[in-house]
Amino acid sequence: MPPEQPLPSGRIERLRERLPLWSVQALLFLDMKNIRYLSGFTGSDGALYIGPDCRILLVDGRYITQARAEAAGFDIHQYQSKMDGLVDVMGTDLKSVPNHGSGVVGFEAETMTVATWTILKERLPGLTLQPLRQELEALRAVKDENEISDIRAAAAIASRALNTVLERIRPGMTEREIAADLDAAIRRGGAQEASFSTIVASGENSALPHARPQDRTVRAGDLITIDFGAVFNGYRSDETCTVALGRADAKQERVYQVVKEAHDRAMEAIRAGVSCRSVDEAARSWIDSQGFGESFTHGTGHGVGLDVHEYPRLSAQSESVLEAGMVVTVEPGVYLPGFWGVRIEDLVVVQKDGCAILSKIPKEFRVIKI
Amino acid sequence: MPPEQPLPSGRIERLRERLPLWSVQALLFLDMKNIRYLSGFTGSDGALYIGPDCRILLVDGRYITQARAEAAGFDIHQYQSKMDGLVDVMGTDLKSVPNHGSGVVGFEAETMTVATWTILKERLPGLTLQPLRQELEALRAVKDENEISDIRAAAAIASRALNTVLERIRPGMTEREIAADLDAAIRRGGAQEASFSTIVASGENSALPHARPQDRTVRAGDLITIDFGAVFNGYRSDETCTVALGRADAKQERVYQVVKEAHDRAMEAIRAGVSCRSVDEAARSWIDSQGFGESFTHGTGHGVGLDVHEYPRLSAQSESVLEAGMVVTVEPGVYLPGFWGVRIEDLVVVQKDGCAILSKIPKEFRVIKI
Repeated sequence: MPPEQPLPSGRIERLRERLPLWSVQALLFLDMKNIRYLSGFTGSDGALYIGPDCRILLVDGRYITQARAEAAGFDIHQYQSKMDGLVDVMGTDLKSVPNHGSGVVGFEAETMTVATWTILKERLPGLTLQPLRQELEALRAVKDENEISDIRAAAAIASRALNTVLERIRPGMTEREIAADLDAAIRRGGAQEASFSTIVASGENSALPHARPQDRTVRAGDLITIDFGAVFNGYRSDETCTVALGRADAKQERVYQVVKEAHDRAMEAIRAGVSCRSVDEAARSWIDSQGFGESFTHGTGHGVGLDVHEYPRLSAQSESVLEAGMVVTVEPGVYLPGFWGVRIEDLVVVQKDGCAILSKIPKEFRVIKI
Repeated sequence: MPPEQPLPSGRIERLRERLPLWSVQALLFLDMKNIRYLSGFTGSDGALYIGPDCRILLVDGRYITQARAEAAGFDIHQYQSKMDGLVDVMGTDLKSVPNHGSGVVGFEAETMTVATWTILKERLPGLTLQPLRQELEALRAVKDENEISDIRAAAAIASRALNTVLERIRPGMTEREIAADLDAAIRRGGAQEASFSTIVASGENSALPHARPQDRTVRAGDLITIDFGAVFNGYRSDETCTVALGRADAKQERVYQVVKEAHDRAMEAIRAGVSCRSVDEAARSWIDSQGFGESFTHGTGHGVGLDVHEYPRLSAQSESVLEAGMVVTVEPGVYLPGFWGVRIEDLVVVQKDGCAILSKIPKEFRVIKI
C-alpha cells in the first residue's frame, strides 16, 4: 500500500493531533455534515472512521462511485447494512493494534442514537465508546477561503432573489405566496435549495420570532419580516430584512431604528479575540436602554456554514471567543406580541480587526411602494 | 383537578394499554412526528411524557400559546432548557409513585442521542431508561380517516402540479429548473412544502435511484424520472413518473412495460392480511423473469404518513403484514447504469379486499410532445 498522501485541507491531520488529548485511538463520525467537512463526500448516508494510520469512508452501494470521486485519498468500504460495515471496519482496526481487539473510539454524542450505541457495544465487546461533545463542537467553526467563498456566493444569490421579490410584493398576496416566490427565485438564481424553511411573517405574525408562512394576506401598513438564505456547494447563508408595506407609523420606524442601532453596535464589536458574550451585550444593552429589553427574546447570532446553526453562539450564556474566519449572524430583534416585530440580520466573517459583511441588502428602513 | 377527558383519537389510551406489556411505568417521546401524532402539537421542538395518569407536553416559551391550542387535554409544561424540563417532569412523576423516586421509563432508542441519555441518567439516578425500538415502529402505521384524507389531498396537489409542469418540459431545460418549477407549483397548489427533495433525473442520471437534480439539460430521446410529493396538514405524498421526451426507442418502451407490469402485479397483491414480502415478491419475480432482476436494486415500497419513509417496508426482508388503513408506496424500478432507468410509483391505502390509489397520474407509457 503506498503511503497516505496528506489532504490539501489538513483537516484530518489536525484531527489526528487531538487523538491523544482525547484519550482515544480513533474517531467514528456519523453526522453527514462532519463527514462532508472531513472527507469531501456529499452523499446523504455513510460513516467515517479516522485513526492515526487509517481514514475509511463507509458507504452503501449506490454511493461507491461518488465516494471514490469526492473522497480521494480515503479508503472506501462498501456495506450492505451500515451496522455490519461499522462492525467490520472497527473490529478489524481494533485487532490491528497492540492490545488485540480492545480499544477506545471517540464518537459524536450529540448524533449517535442510543439504538446504534447499544448495538455497537453488543457486537464489539472489546470496544469502549468514548462520547465527545464540547471537544467536537468547534470542529468546523473557522472557515477557510474556499468555504468563505461558497458562503459569500450563497449570500449573493439569496440577496439578489429577495431584491426581485421585494419589488413584486403587493397588498393581497399571502405570506405563503411570497415565500414560494422567494424560494423559486433562490433556486433559479443557482442555489441548490433554500438554506432553511423561509420565514415570511407579516403584521401580528412578525411578532413571532419563529413564524412559518401562513395564509395571511399582507396589507398596507404591515411590517413584513423575511428571514431567508441559499445553499451553494453545501454552504448556507442567512439574512433577515424587515420592510414596511406602503406606509409605516412613527412607532414602527422608531422600533426599527432601535433594532438597527443594536445591529450596528454588535457589528462594531466583532473582531478576532473578543468574547461572543460581549457582542451580544453590545446589542442587548442598547435595546435594554431604549426600554425594549424584555422584547429581545433570543441571542444576537450564531455560526453558519454547512449547517445554518453552528458553533459559536452569540448569546449572554456563551463562553466562546471569536476567531478570524468564523462566519456568524448578527440578528437582534424586538417583538411586540399582538402587534408586530422587527428583526435585522446580516452575515459576517470575523477578521483580525473587524468583520466583512457577506449578506448584500442594505439595512436602512425601507417602505415598499404599492 | 378535573378528571382527564379521553381524546377523540384514542391514541393515548391505546398507548397506555401497552405500558404493562413493555414493563414501563411511563413513556418519553422526543421525536416530533410521534409527538404530533399523539398530542396534535405541530411545533418544531418539545417533548412528551405519557404515564397512566398524566399526559404532559413540554415546550419552550415561544410555543406555549400554540401548545395550549393544539394539544387540548394535555398538561403543558414550559421549560427554559429542555433537559431541565425533562428532569422536572420526570423527577416529579417518579416521586409520585409508590417506589418513591425510582422507576422505569420507556423511550425511543432510534431518536434519543447518547448525549441526552447520559445527562438524564446523571441527573435522575433513580430512573431506569428502557430503550424501545420494534415496540414503537408500527405506532403510526394504520391511518385513520382524517389522516387518509390529508394524504389524499397532498397527493392530489402534487399530481396536479406535475401535470402542469409536464406540459412545459422542453429540450434545453435543466433538471434543476424542472425541479424548481415543480416545487413552486406544489407550493402554489396549497401544499406547505414539497414532501422531500424532488428528484428530476434525465438520461443517464435516471439510472441512479437516488439522483438529485443536476445542471444536465434534457434532450429529445431522454427518459426523465420525476419522484415528487406534497405536504398537506403535515401528511406527505410520494409518487414517481417516468416519461420520454419527444421520442422513445423500443428498448426504453420495453423496459417501461416490464416495470409497469411489475407495478400492476404488486398493486394486485395488496390487501389486508398479506405479508409485505409477498407484495415485493410479486413485483420482483416478474422483473426477474424478464431478465432484469439485477437491475431492481431496492425494495418495492414503504409506508408514508407524517414521514415520507415509515413502517412498514415492502421488501424481501420484511417480516410485516399489511393491515387495512396502512398507506404504502408501490415503486418497482429497473436501472441500467450508463444508459437510463425507469421507476413507476403510486401511493395506495390498504383495504380489506385490495387497495385504493391515492396518487392521481395514470402510469401508461407517455411521450412528452416537443
